[in-house]
Amino acid sequence: MLSVEEALTQLLADIVPLPVEEAPLLECLDRVLARDAVADTDLPPFANSAMDGYAVHAADTSGATGGDPRRLPVVGEVAAGDPGTTPLTHGTAVRIMTGAPVPPGADAVIPVEQTHAREGAVDLLAAVETGASIRPAGDDARAGQRVLAAGAVLRPGEIGLLASIGAARVPVHRRPRVAILSTGNELVPVEQVPGPGQIRNSNASMLAAQVLRCGALPVELGAARDSRESVHAALDAGRGCDLYLSSGGVSVGDYDVVKAVLEERGGIAFWRVNMRPGKPVAFGRIDGIPFLGLPGNPVSSFVTFELFARPLLRKLAGHRSLARQVVPVKLDEPVRGAGPRRNYVRALARWEADGWHAATTGAQESHLLRSTVAANALIVAPEGGGDMAAGAQAMALLLDWPESDT
Amino acid sequence: MLSVEEALTQLLADIVPLPVEEAPLLECLDRVLARDAVADTDLPPFANSAMDGYAVHAADTSGATGGDPRRLPVVGEVAAGDPGTTPLTHGTAVRIMTGAPVPPGADAVIPVEQTHAREGAVDLLAAVETGASIRPAGDDARAGQRVLAAGAVLRPGEIGLLASIGAARVPVHRRPRVAILSTGNELVPVEQVPGPGQIRNSNASMLAAQVLRCGALPVELGAARDSRESVHAALDAGRGCDLYLSSGGVSVGDYDVVKAVLEERGGIAFWRVNMRPGKPVAFGRIDGIPFLGLPGNPVSSFVTFELFARPLLRKLAGHRSLARQVVPVKLDEPVRGAGPRRNYVRALARWEADGWHAATTGAQESHLLRSTVAANALIVAPEGGGDMAAGAQAMALLLDWPESDT
Repeated sequence: MLSVEEALTQLLADIVPLPVEEAPLLECLDRVLARDAVADTDLPPFANSAMDGYAVHAADTSGATGGDPRRLPVVGEVAAGDPGTTPLTHGTAVRIMTGAPVPPGADAVIPVEQTHAREGAVDLLAAVETGASIRPAGDDARAGQRVLAAGAVLRPGEIGLLASIGAARVPVHRRPRVAILSTGNELVPVEQVPGPGQIRNSNASMLAAQVLRCGALPVELGAARDSRESVHAALDAGRGCDLYLSSGGVSVGDYDVVKAVLEERGGIAFWRVNMRPGKPVAFGRIDGIPFLGLPGNPVSSFVTFELFARPLLRKLAGHRSLARQVVPVKLDEPVRGAGPRRNYVRALARWEADGWHAATTGAQESHLLRSTVAANALIVAPEGGGDMAAGAQAMALLLDWPESDT
Repeated sequence: MLSVEEALTQLLADIVPLPVEEAPLLECLDRVLARDAVADTDLPPFANSAMDGYAVHAADTSGATGGDPRRLPVVGEVAAGDPGTTPLTHGTAVRIMTGAPVPPGADAVIPVEQTHAREGAVDLLAAVETGASIRPAGDDARAGQRVLAAGAVLRPGEIGLLASIGAARVPVHRRPRVAILSTGNELVPVEQVPGPGQIRNSNASMLAAQVLRCGALPVELGAARDSRESVHAALDAGRGCDLYLSSGGVSVGDYDVVKAVLEERGGIAFWRVNMRPGKPVAFGRIDGIPFLGLPGNPVSSFVTFELFARPLLRKLAGHRSLARQVVPVKLDEPVRGAGPRRNYVRALARWEADGWHAATTGAQESHLLRSTVAANALIVAPEGGGDMAAGAQAMALLLDWPESDT
């Protein structure tokens, strides 16, 4: 049986980031920059004032105090947005606003709070040094300098930086399109009332939500019936996707036709991964497109998505960091091992002054969605490691970063 | 001067969650459930088999072993999706697939691996107990039971659970619409090359990205010029929003007309908050709609958004947890205090075996976006607390949950 790590390594081996597209800046949020971003101008583009005050020669303020001010004639005014090209001569001052260009010749700004305005002049109540309250041109970046490297994840700060260098459209890896297929005669659409023996196709919605959470685009193919024709038709409908994701239909039952269809259309490996929950996971290619088959039990489907589909989708999207953070937690209660298998136990992790703590969210059978709903983490009970006692330290994979209460 | 906490308390005091709308299930991802969700059927709706095998009376397996099997006639077969209403009589077995309804009268399933198929019969190679490999109806939830409470955040697990109870449309709080206004004669659109004295309006894009990250919808009003008419027109264009968010224009310069317009159209308070970065923050109502005025420096704008706008938007969206997590970090290097003010220092926090560590991201002047880009956290240097030494413990507000490398 494969370990989780071995399965993931095999899964990711042939996956390469999707092609690059130029997308409008805001649509690039949380995506991955595909080429280095270079400043087209200095940032800031010109020396500007950090304060409202007076642009001066620092030398003209020498020795100034409240009791012994220096008086300079005010020969002009420059506001933010003005070109600000009139030079300042020694012995004069120019009224200047925050963000306005520093006049050529001026080498300091004295804040308005340290001045006293007079008719046509200003009294300076303090001395300032060369460069005071001036933001030099190119202080943040020089024209031609790389400000973001390919591979950067575009968070709000990066979006702001790209805006400042005029990147209205940005080269990013295309978002993965994920065709989601459920299989089983028992499945009816969410909006339908199930008849005898039927259940709603809840996995498709859950997987679509997990796909969205990865920044990828779900394409729901609906539920195929347990017939070759139905599965073929569903796969055909998914053409153009970057990943086929199925739930159900890859176990060992007599009615599992998916397996047969997969073997006809591609090279599919059926893996037994040494974990619980999670029965066989299937991986391969269908018509050349990666295919990942998850178990049909909702909880197994949820957990195997997190462990396998999410890193795969992040790699397709160009991300370099692929896995959820795993942190040490102190257990509130005993946690069962799964014998020789690794057990992923749904849990609620919380941060306290002395570190992370975690409690399980109740019964762990793989058809129980409610204990998944309550969870924000998976406690990892190592393969062959036996049960763990209350108070013991374990590792937990964090599914959500919890926000704290105000 | 107000503390950050006092300012936030005042800001949130009059904010109530937005009205409820019924949205398609997937559009509710990461939003807040506005009414309790109740199961319309048992979950699962019927007792079903957890395994491929044979439905039997447990009593009929008593004493069975590999060496001394029990042979039962196989009187039928039930697959997932079959109604499964034919009752099972004592002394017989029914072939059953995973997820198929357990026939009335059967009280256990014996997995196929513990059987040996014969012509028209099956040999049972082990004894099973009553209830074995059966998932009872209502095991996850009972019809009429509340499965999610109002206020729940709808993550993928919750989406799956709602799908299983037929919630194709879900009552959630409306997404906040945020009108984003920048002010300043110096601002040109991102796609334009700035002329002398001009800079690109990068704050609008950055704030829009921050708004999106809160699950809210940005409406960019563009940059208003420093004239009453221009600011009035921009505010008019934002009608119908749930929050006005401005950057710039609320400081003390002669050219700050925003302030005057705000005072004409609403009750606006100008606050000095005891923090750095972050000059005066303005808060109040414009034509009855909340208004939050952030400083114009990109970094001040970024940080004050995180501290003030984000909790406000989360409250509007119905969230109950409003603030970012704050964790103890060990400092890699000395961190400057900001004298009597609280200093928020851009930093890169990382998780190590012994807890969180953090390093600053370089120069901290409030016009330097590049040190924001490198940051995933803000180290909090307490007001009046002085400088902190390398190796000291400090608190840090986490802006991003870092993904780890695989």
